[in-house]
Formats: sequence, C-alpha cells, structure tokens
Amino acid sequence: MVEEYTRVGDKWYYLLHPRPVYIVASGRRDAKAGFMAASWLMPLSEEPPRIVAALEKTSHTTSLVLDTGAFTVNVYGIGDRDFVYTSGTISGRKHDKVSLLNVRLNYDTVTGAPRIVHPRPLGFIDSRVYRVVGDVADDVYLVIGDVVGAYADKALFNERYGWDLRKVRILMHAAGRAFTSNSGVFVARKLA
Amino acid sequence: MVEEYTRVGDKWYYLLHPRPVYIVASGRRDAKAGFMAASWLMPLSEEPPRIVAALEKTSHTTSLVLDTGAFTVNVYGIGDRDFVYTSGTISGRKHDKVSLLNVRLNYDTVTGAPRIVHPRPLGFIDSRVYRVVGDVADDVYLVIGDVVGAYADKALFNERYGWDLRKVRILMHAAGRAFTSNSGVFVARKLA
Repeated sequence: MVEEYTRVGDKWYYLLHPRPVYIVASGRRDAKAGFMAASWLMPLSEEPPRIVAALEKTSHTTSLVLDTGAFTVNVYGIGDRDFVYTSGTISGRKHDKVSLLNVRLNYDTVTGAPRIVHPRPLGFIDSRVYRVVGDVADDVYLVIGDVVGAYADKALFNERYGWDLRKVRILMHAAGRAFTSNSGVFVARKLA
Repeated sequence: MVEEYTRVGDKWYYLLHPRPVYIVASGRRDAKAGFMAASWLMPLSEEPPRIVAALEKTSHTTSLVLDTGAFTVNVYGIGDRDFVYTSGTISGRKHDKVSLLNVRLNYDTVTGAPRIVHPRPLGFIDSRVYRVVGDVADDVYLVIGDVVGAYADKALFNERYGWDLRKVRILMHAAGRAFTSNSGVFVARKLA
C-alpha cells in the first residue's frame, strides 16, 4: 500500500466524516417521548421516497421507533451543537431529556411522531418505518423509513437547490465533541 | 404545520444534504473497471465494521460491485470536484471513463477491488460485499459491505479525531453542480 496513507483501525468510519447530524425523535403523545442524536442516517431512494438509518439497538429512542413505527428527523444548524451533542450523550432511559434540555415537542405530524419545536430545527422529515433489518450488525438496527413529509425553513431552502449554503450552516458531526459545518458553494464543471 | 416551514416535494432528500460524496470503484484487473460518484453511502456499524450504500441499479459500477463482490470508497477534497462531478454524470457503459478522465487505478487492495491512485484521494476504504438488499427500493440496491481496510493521508488524519478539519476540505455534494466543504471545528459542551 502506498506510503502516504496510514492504515486506520477501529475508527475507520471517521473516513466517512464529517456528515450531518440529526435529532431522531419518536414516541406517543401520552407517554414519554424520546430523542437522540444520529448521524448514520441518509437518503435511500427517490422511488419510493425512503431514508435509512443505523440506530443503536440499546437506545430508548430506537425502542420507541420500533414500537410506534414512526419518527421524525430534525436538521439543525451549527448554533445548536451543544443541544445536539448533549442529546447524544445522555440516556432517555435514565433521564427525562425533554425537561432536562428544555425541549418542546409537537405531534401535528402525519405519522403522529413528535417533531421538535424548541430548539427550532432548520427543517425536519416525518417518516413511517417501512422495514427494520436486525441481523446485519450486532449493535444497530438498519431502519428503513418512508418519507411521509419533508419541511424546511422557507428563508433557507428552495426546492431547486436545496439549502441555501451561503446563508445556512448545517450541523455536521466530526468526532467526539468536534462538530463542523458547510463552507460556501463551489460549482463544478464537466470535464468530458 | 408551522408557518415558517415550506413543504418539500420531490427533492425531500436535499434536507439531508450536504454530505460527503465519494467515488465508488469496482471491477477486475483484466477487465474494464468502473467508478462513479456516490453520496448515499455511510457507516452502518462498528461491530462488525460495516458500511451501507444506496447504489443505482442501472449503473455499470453497481453491476461490477455485485459481480465481483468488492469495491473501494475513495474520499476526495474540494479541489477534485470537477473530477467527481464528471464521474457522476457520464456512464461507464457508454464511455471508457478511465482514459477519458485520465484515471490511474491500483489493484493492491486486500479485496482486489481497484482503488484510485490519480486523482489522488484523501483516503479510501476497501470493502467486501456482505449483503445486497434489492427489494427496498425501485431504483437502488442497498449494498452492505464489510470494511476490510481503511487508509487515510497521514498528514491529514489521526485515529483519535479523524480528519484534521483545520487542514482538510472534504468534498460534499449539495445539489446538481453545487458542492460544498467543511468549515473549521466547533467544539460542543455538555449542557446537562
């Protein structure tokens, strides 16, 4: 193997960072809701509109996703990194994260899953679980969800180009406490 | 739904952008290799080390991934956006992309899959296909791969923090011709 490269061990997945980090929220209106940070979540297909997430088997929020069959994916800006980081480091089994982090939820989604109102996300996706694959990893479920609705801040998003990257600073996770965000826009040209 | 949000239609997946874009390469040494841009690819699990990718069913590179059972994931910096964009816009069925884009490949990987030597990536992952799920979307296969090896530029990466985000500018795809990159580092603190 070429000299300039170092072989990476346990932290091989850092090669695929940075990437957006989200808050996945789930639960029933009349029971304790759950939410957690998740960055291993991505679009799966346009036809039909689906997303896929690798969710820790032991997480409280994951059990709510499986129980209720619905969840929201909340997208944040760099300014909310403390909230997102903390959401990913304390357990909803041991703590009432909603009151501890002063979170407000709303259940006005199509699926009935809670979306986060405060701290206010840049946008969110409302998703219904389509399939859960449990036997592809020891530590996570691969959760595939139908996109039932997608909502973005009017001032920061348009359907042609997506996020206005000159205005918005999307929160991405690097490693541990380290987060990053997008820079401006670089337009590519076709070489051939 | 709250006033400030706009309901997003077909381009719902832009809500999950920007995200890193990679070059997935596959094929046999003695035959035509294939490579293409892919940004719907992420870590799946630490135990065992696995990645998951949504690969277009009709792509030449995808057929090579399925045939050979191996591929590499090559990570690029913002400077190589023209190469990556073009790799994603021309078909390996119709064109000899290797010569058209002046690409050099090396087959010294554990899996035997080609990795790209020129243009030089920041790092790459060597992966063996573990499972292909074909029935979760019309347009893509969900390809799950074991991470056999991971290699990163020594000067830009360390195993504790991953990419040195003060030095490196990772290529991320926004929409169409628009790419972005990471900004610097923001350190989060725990709120509770």
